[in-house]
Amino acid sequence: MDHLIDYVEKNHDRYLSELFEFLRIPSISGDPNRRDDVLKAAHWLAAHLGGIGMENVQVFPTTGNPMVYADWLHAAGKPTLLVYGHYDVQPVDPLELWTTPPFEPSVRDENLYARGSSDDKGQLFIHLKGVEAYLKNGRGLPVNVKFIFEGEEEIGSVHLEGFVREKKDLLKANFVLISDSAMFAYDFPSICYGLRGLSYMQVEVTGPNKDLHSGTFGGAVHNPLQALAEIIASLHDKNGKVTVKGFYDDVIPLTRKERDSFKRLPRKDSAFAKELGVKQLWGEKGYTTLERLWGRPTLEVNGMWGGFTGEGAKTVLPSKAFAKISMRLVPGQDPDKVAKLFEKHVKAIVPKSVTVSVEKLHGGKPALTPIDSDAVKAAYEALRKAWWKKPVYMREGGSIPIVVEFQQTLKAPTVLLGFGLPDENAHAPDEHLNLKNFFKGIETSVYFFDELASMTWKG
Amino acid sequence: MDHLIDYVEKNHDRYLSELFEFLRIPSISGDPNRRDDVLKAAHWLAAHLGGIGMENVQVFPTTGNPMVYADWLHAAGKPTLLVYGHYDVQPVDPLELWTTPPFEPSVRDENLYARGSSDDKGQLFIHLKGVEAYLKNGRGLPVNVKFIFEGEEEIGSVHLEGFVREKKDLLKANFVLISDSAMFAYDFPSICYGLRGLSYMQVEVTGPNKDLHSGTFGGAVHNPLQALAEIIASLHDKNGKVTVKGFYDDVIPLTRKERDSFKRLPRKDSAFAKELGVKQLWGEKGYTTLERLWGRPTLEVNGMWGGFTGEGAKTVLPSKAFAKISMRLVPGQDPDKVAKLFEKHVKAIVPKSVTVSVEKLHGGKPALTPIDSDAVKAAYEALRKAWWKKPVYMREGGSIPIVVEFQQTLKAPTVLLGFGLPDENAHAPDEHLNLKNFFKGIETSVYFFDELASMTWKG
Repeated sequence: MDHLIDYVEKNHDRYLSELFEFLRIPSISGDPNRRDDVLKAAHWLAAHLGGIGMENVQVFPTTGNPMVYADWLHAAGKPTLLVYGHYDVQPVDPLELWTTPPFEPSVRDENLYARGSSDDKGQLFIHLKGVEAYLKNGRGLPVNVKFIFEGEEEIGSVHLEGFVREKKDLLKANFVLISDSAMFAYDFPSICYGLRGLSYMQVEVTGPNKDLHSGTFGGAVHNPLQALAEIIASLHDKNGKVTVKGFYDDVIPLTRKERDSFKRLPRKDSAFAKELGVKQLWGEKGYTTLERLWGRPTLEVNGMWGGFTGEGAKTVLPSKAFAKISMRLVPGQDPDKVAKLFEKHVKAIVPKSVTVSVEKLHGGKPALTPIDSDAVKAAYEALRKAWWKKPVYMREGGSIPIVVEFQQTLKAPTVLLGFGLPDENAHAPDEHLNLKNFFKGIETSVYFFDELASMTWKG
Repeated sequence: MDHLIDYVEKNHDRYLSELFEFLRIPSISGDPNRRDDVLKAAHWLAAHLGGIGMENVQVFPTTGNPMVYADWLHAAGKPTLLVYGHYDVQPVDPLELWTTPPFEPSVRDENLYARGSSDDKGQLFIHLKGVEAYLKNGRGLPVNVKFIFEGEEEIGSVHLEGFVREKKDLLKANFVLISDSAMFAYDFPSICYGLRGLSYMQVEVTGPNKDLHSGTFGGAVHNPLQALAEIIASLHDKNGKVTVKGFYDDVIPLTRKERDSFKRLPRKDSAFAKELGVKQLWGEKGYTTLERLWGRPTLEVNGMWGGFTGEGAKTVLPSKAFAKISMRLVPGQDPDKVAKLFEKHVKAIVPKSVTVSVEKLHGGKPALTPIDSDAVKAAYEALRKAWWKKPVYMREGGSIPIVVEFQQTLKAPTVLLGFGLPDENAHAPDEHLNLKNFFKGIETSVYFFDELASMTWKG
């Protein structure tokens, strides 16, 4: 392994100049005028995959942007790893807030500045260089590797789900590796092993059959805005627990090991509150902030509206009131089941003076790759060796739909190895990637393939 | 008096043809293209006032539409009555829903159809004909009469308040009479003696200092939409009482006589609920629907908004949430004081996890002309004589700002003698006025002047 790590260290400059080429292509999927650039990035990536020794390189067209695929499958009897990433990038507005132009990569203070440096060209490039280290040094890879890169992640991965289902056999793998997220903090090599799921609902409360004058009718008919506020207020108890009946029934509790591990992470409530501009944090009693965010299901009002919302004073008692309410789910919970519990609960508590309708707008399952699974263990060892320190376990409060798709269609657990940092402006001006993390990332990639190959594994 | 009533009865046809002329002028104040027609209506009215024998006729220009004034002040030692009305009308859209064109008056089934027939050309015309009956029959009026008609009522009476203050001496009167509203129901001659006031507030709840991703942050920070819902839900107790501290302190309770009088009115909760399309009415326990609407202060949410309100599912935890909340006030309550109580209360109950700001947008005092005051007694007798039955006392749940202005600037109590009906489409297509009410209205006007003159009055 030392041999490979030496190789990585000697090639830092070349890695950067190659990545600069990739970053110079303005592959903004959200801008129809950049269609040619998006295609250019796909083909640049395909050519590069061929160049490092990957085989079976293919650019699959979709009705949107193409999927870029490549594999190397000569590690007989060893597991197969699917590496996912995306070669499209976010728009760059407001352009005037960039210190240097977004598509002219520039290094300042140990950071590489460019749109896509962190999200996700720089991070996916890490694993290309990890693979290259093996293939350019006269040895094969210790595991079988497949790459799949899409060009629509920043516009909702429109064609990815269909593609994964259609190409299920081609993409078949034992593990999935994604580097498209952030480490917990600088110098905290991190493994993200869990994501929350989602049930997103819309609630419509109807009072009188038309908008009324609030002077003429106010006080004799239940105002649907008030009724909606009463419903929403009742969805949490005084301890911050969600009151929806049965909501917590299927929750797999955080283990003692997980809670202990989260507690060791350097997150101060006071600093977090200050960063968010609030005097006091809020949440479910009995849990720390990280436990609330990563390991507990929650209920959020995402939108609420009705009546007069313009300038000034209009005395209306509206006919209808609306809210968008989403529940974040943790492992064990099922989005459809929770959506039904929510609907049932709201219909049970609605007063007779109004009517309510509930619609499910969107759902996604939670994802969890157990800490003691082979993939997580391999990631742990790889990080430890590259960083010379113990990695931390983390989860994400949000959802990444493709992780669930891989889990469901490929039956493959996913490890999220993020090499970005939380403040690297992934979707904002001056996006950057820390160079230490970039180079350490390549070393981690090299170690990871090796560790995965040595895990006890029944193929 | 019989002599005058005979005169009225003999002139029905002429009254209608004169009113038709007035109604044919499309004096829509909300339509800048109708400016000439609005002016035409003002001058038609001025000419008509002169024609019936009123004196000192003046058309006062404003930077908007003019005020039309006239008086007859020869009843030495007798009270002075100011009659207010408006000669502008609502827009007519949607035009295709009119059975006959809005500015071509047409009689069908004992109703006169035209824009302005009920609101307010037809109703103000009633008092012109009441005055005419005296002045055209060789006798003077038994009281002093002043008319003031504006042309901006349908666009918020923009210049009326300033005009009343500026022309305080010209408009000085002991009583004010307004016919611009509806009777309780058909065949229920009605006196409206009270209006609710208003304190209209805007509430802004701030949580985090920017919009957050509800997955990444949901559950660890108090969602301002939820906090706003909790605040709003807490503003009523389980008996429908407003919880704002001190809210009811200054309320002058309904008297036994008033409550008895309201109870005799034919208003069925079941029919009212059906009309509004609700299964069940709602309101403050211990009061009937009419008491809630007319005699009790209330609190209404007029608008509420925040977060994502478009189509679909966006997972935002917003920084801010807003509500427009108005309180209807009854006699005894002061809008400024109630606004302060509201602000104090909301600031006292807001949790530490969010901040709140409260702004007063608008306010208006309640108005009450006691049932046993001379003006109300005169109106009662006049209605009884014209209709041959006992009138009913009613209040309005809404506010009419000009009534408060007359009360404050002129120190004159107002009687609201409405001759419209609640279902006459005042602001909708096919506006109409019941002809029986129109002719009975003129008789009422004749009797009212006479009754007012005979009241014990200390000028």
